Amino acid sequence: MHAEQMAEDFPVVSHDSDAWEAARLLAEHRLPGLVVTDRDGHPQAILPASQVVRFLVPSYVQDDPSLAGVLNESMADHVADKLGGRKVGELIARESPELAVVKADDTIVEVAAIMARLRCPLAAVMDGGNLIGVITASRLLELALIRR
Amino acid sequence: MHAEQMAEDFPVVSHDSDAWEAARLLAEHRLPGLVVTDRDGHPQAILPASQVVRFLVPSYVQDDPSLAGVLNESMADHVADKLGGRKVGELIARESPELAVVKADDTIVEVAAIMARLRCPLAAVMDGGNLIGVITASRLLELALIRR
Repeated sequence: MHAEQMAEDFPVVSHDSDAWEAARLLAEHRLPGLVVTDRDGHPQAILPASQVVRFLVPSYVQDDPSLAGVLNESMADHVADKLGGRKVGELIARESPELAVVKADDTIVEVAAIMARLRCPLAAVMDGGNLIGVITASRLLELALIRR
Repeated sequence: MHAEQMAEDFPVVSHDSDAWEAARLLAEHRLPGLVVTDRDGHPQAILPASQVVRFLVPSYVQDDPSLAGVLNESMADHVADKLGGRKVGELIARESPELAVVKADDTIVEVAAIMARLRCPLAAVMDGGNLIGVITASRLLELALIRR
């Protein structure tokens, strides 16, 4: 089995996409992260769900987590407002994991090796210059267990 | 909304659980990771799906990823055999992310702050000494977006 058969059709966002829309896709599909492309559709980075969560936390709370407890419920209700008007590119952290990129004809072991080396929860599958899908770590485990 | 209302009933494994079973749970529920407890049921660590993938990769391939390409299909078919007879405790890496632990009455901002600080894709929700559920980063986003 090759990467192209393992790949799933996953939502992809670009650097210029709306940050709100990216959060919605992560939430709706319960994804561990999204592949972020440049304007030409080339995969460029991974946006982990935990990074978007990080963005929601006010900076004074990041500096002193004990302050989170003093926010009242009504303030907490508006925690997602921070995403309004932001672009996906603004959410990507410098320390985000490097995106694992695999070729359409890579084997399951090759995909696993690249994912393992980068400690990346997902891999973008490329056929030449085209992104044809994504393989998550849990999808790879599913395929590895079925094949046993 | 408090953490206890945000928590979902997620599969939990202990240090002594079968590694194969842990991989199956990650695959079946498409989870980014599992909460690992000690024998008394106290959450102790997180087992990311990418860490289990890492375990599947033969050590000589980890040392030299170009060797993955020379494994033939029949060898690749048995990649999951490495999990046989192993315990979950053997899969947990020293460099695994620290488990985010939150209290049942923590608010969404408190949960987000802890998850963000530890860059952890999930948080264990404790009511006193009892694990009552798990909140993933994508679940937290879902709740934050709904509440807006």
